[in-house]
Amino acid sequence: MKFTINKFDDKSNARAGVIETAHGKIETPIFMPVGTVGSVKGIHQHELADDIKAQIILGNTYHLYLRPGTEVLHEAGGLHKFMNWDKPILTDSGGYQVFSLAETRKITEEGVKFQSHIDGSKHLFTPEKVVDIERIIGSDIMMALDECTPYPADYEYAKNSMELTHRWLKRGIAHFKNTQSLYGFDQTYFPIVQGSTYNDLREQSAEFIAKQECEGNAIGGLSVGEPTEVMYEMLDKVNAILPKDKPRYLMGVGTPENILEGIALGTDMFDCVMPTRNGRHGLLFTQNGTINIKNKKWEKDFSPIDPQGTSFVDTKYSKAYLRHLIKADERLGAQIAGIHNLAFYLDLVKQARQHIIDGDFASWKNQMVQKLRNRL
Amino acid sequence: MKFTINKFDDKSNARAGVIETAHGKIETPIFMPVGTVGSVKGIHQHELADDIKAQIILGNTYHLYLRPGTEVLHEAGGLHKFMNWDKPILTDSGGYQVFSLAETRKITEEGVKFQSHIDGSKHLFTPEKVVDIERIIGSDIMMALDECTPYPADYEYAKNSMELTHRWLKRGIAHFKNTQSLYGFDQTYFPIVQGSTYNDLREQSAEFIAKQECEGNAIGGLSVGEPTEVMYEMLDKVNAILPKDKPRYLMGVGTPENILEGIALGTDMFDCVMPTRNGRHGLLFTQNGTINIKNKKWEKDFSPIDPQGTSFVDTKYSKAYLRHLIKADERLGAQIAGIHNLAFYLDLVKQARQHIIDGDFASWKNQMVQKLRNRL
Repeated sequence: MKFTINKFDDKSNARAGVIETAHGKIETPIFMPVGTVGSVKGIHQHELADDIKAQIILGNTYHLYLRPGTEVLHEAGGLHKFMNWDKPILTDSGGYQVFSLAETRKITEEGVKFQSHIDGSKHLFTPEKVVDIERIIGSDIMMALDECTPYPADYEYAKNSMELTHRWLKRGIAHFKNTQSLYGFDQTYFPIVQGSTYNDLREQSAEFIAKQECEGNAIGGLSVGEPTEVMYEMLDKVNAILPKDKPRYLMGVGTPENILEGIALGTDMFDCVMPTRNGRHGLLFTQNGTINIKNKKWEKDFSPIDPQGTSFVDTKYSKAYLRHLIKADERLGAQIAGIHNLAFYLDLVKQARQHIIDGDFASWKNQMVQKLRNRL
Repeated sequence: MKFTINKFDDKSNARAGVIETAHGKIETPIFMPVGTVGSVKGIHQHELADDIKAQIILGNTYHLYLRPGTEVLHEAGGLHKFMNWDKPILTDSGGYQVFSLAETRKITEEGVKFQSHIDGSKHLFTPEKVVDIERIIGSDIMMALDECTPYPADYEYAKNSMELTHRWLKRGIAHFKNTQSLYGFDQTYFPIVQGSTYNDLREQSAEFIAKQECEGNAIGGLSVGEPTEVMYEMLDKVNAILPKDKPRYLMGVGTPENILEGIALGTDMFDCVMPTRNGRHGLLFTQNGTINIKNKKWEKDFSPIDPQGTSFVDTKYSKAYLRHLIKADERLGAQIAGIHNLAFYLDLVKQARQHIIDGDFASWKNQMVQKLRNRL
C-alpha cells in the first residue's frame, strides 16, 4: 500500500491524498460503504461503482466468518471474486461485532469466546485467528483485533482494555508478518487506537500504535455514545500523535457533519451504516439538510428527490413516490434511499477533497455544516 | 387499443400478435410483471425496461387505492408519471384482493364492502367506483370488477357468483363509456370470464363476455387451487368462445410451464407474482429446470447463475454468491433472484413468440416443458 498526500489544508488539519492498493486507487478523504455480509444492503455492485462512485467498501470479518464461512470464501478465491467487486476492500476485525454480543462472549488474554448470533455455536477469535480469516477474505486492508471499549467505561476498565488491545496487536502484527497473502496480491494491516474518553489513555494508545509503523492507523471506540464534542477532542488528540504521512481511519463514523469535522481534524477514512440504515427509515441526507421523507409535507411533492444529487435515483424518482414506497414498506424505497444517501456521502467527501486542493476547505466546511443541520 | 395477429400456429391455438396502446406496443404472447403497490418488488424501473425487457406491468387497484390513494395519484397525473414508467400499465380491478379478505368483506348487489388490511378502515368498491379509480390511476388496460369465485365452489354458488360478475360488468361498461380518460390518452376496459370449474358456466360466461365486444377479454378464477388439468380444460373451452381477433388474458397464471401451455391454448397475456415471490425464497427458473439455490449443492458452485440468462445478474453473480445472500437474508439476494426470474419469464414468452412465427412452436413447447420440469 502506498499513501501520497497531494495537499495539506492551511486552516485545518485536513489533507487530500491517494491510497494505492492492489485493487486500485482511493482518493482521500474517503467514505467506505459498509457491506457487512458481502453485500451493501440492497445495492448492486455496479450501482456501487457507477452510481455511488464507491472507491472502497467494507466487509465484516465476524459476519463473513459465520456466513458464508472461510471454506467457501477460500474456494472462491477471496471476497473480491466471491462478490464480483474488483476495487479495494477493508475488513473490520470483528471486534466491534463480537463485543456487541455482550451476554454471549467472554474476553480472556487468549482472545474472545463468543456464540454465533445465528445458531448459538461457540467460537474463539484470537488476534492470530482474525489475521488468518482476513487472509482468506483477501481484504486489501485488514484491521487488527481490538476490544472496542464500551462507553461509559471507568478508568481502570478503559486502561486494562486498551492494554489488552495493545498486547493483542503485538501478536496480530507478528502473525501478519509470518503469514502471506493467499491470492498473490498485497494486503496491509491497520492497528486501532483505543483508550475510551481519557486523554492520557488516548495519548498512550496513539503513541503505542504509532510506534508499530503500520502503513495506516485507525481510531476505534468513538461514536459509541459519548458526546460529539468529546469525540472530536479525542480525535484531535490522537491525530496529533499518529504519523502525518499515513492514512488515519475513524471507525464507524458517522453523520455527514461528523465526517466533515473529522476531515478537518486530519482524518482520511470513514465508514458507517448510517446512509443505508437511515435510508431504510426514510431519512435522506442532502446538501441543504435532512429530509424525513415519511413526513406528510412530501406526500404530494412530485419534484425530484434531490436535484443536486449525483445518482440516477435523484432525478428519476420524485419525493412523493419515494415517500409512498417507504410508507408502504416496499423494498424499492430502501434501495432508492440507500443509493441516494451513499451517493451523497461519496459526493460530500469528493467535494471536501476538491476544496482542500482548492485551498478553501475550512470556510466551505463551516458553511456546509450549517446547511447540513437543517431539517427540510 | 389495437390488436394485430401476425401469425397463427398450425399445430396449436397459439398466436403471435402486437397490442398497440397509448404507451407503446406490446408483443404477444406477453408476461406482465406485477407491480402491486406501484413498484415491482425490489426492481428499479430502468431494470424492468432494460434488463428484464418488460413491455407492460401490472398495478393493483385495491392496493393503489389504499396507498398512495387516489388524491396523490390524481395530482401526480396518474401512475405512469407517479412511478416514472412510460410503457403500458394494466390494472387489476381489486376483485381478487378484496375477495382474499374473506373475513372482513361483504358482497352485495351494489358492490363489495371491505376493511383495509392496513388500518381496518371501511370501504366500498362498486363496478362504477373501480372504473373511477382506474381512470385516476390512468392504466392503459382497466379490468372490470368481478367476484373471483373461490375454489372449490358448489354449483349454486358458482352460478350466482358468475351472474353477479356479469351484472357488475354491464354497470362497469356503462360507466366506462360515460367517463373519460383524465390524462388525454386512451384507456380500454377488459371484462373477466368466471364460472369456476363448471363447463356449462364457463361456456355461458365466455359467451356473455364475448358479446360485450370489449377490446380484449380476461379469464379469471383459475389457478386458485383447482388441478392444473382442469385449469387447462377450462381455458381451452373459454378460449374457443372468446373472439379470436382480440387479446385473451389469463389472470394470475403461473409457472413457466403453465404459461407455455396457456399460449398453446390461445392465450396472449399472463401475470403472476411467482417470479419475484419464489425468487425471494431462492427458487430460480431456468431453461434447464428449476434451481433451489438454498440447496447445499450450490454452496461452492462459483459458476454464473445462468449462462443462458439474458440479464446482467446471470453472468455477474455466481450461484454460490446468490445462495449466500438468500441464506443470509440479504436484500440483494431477492433483488438478483427477482431480476433473473422476471428476465427469464420475458425471454420465455419472447422465444415462444419467435417459434410461433417460425412455425415450430408446438414441438419447441413440448421439449421445453419437459426441460422446465427438471429440478437441478
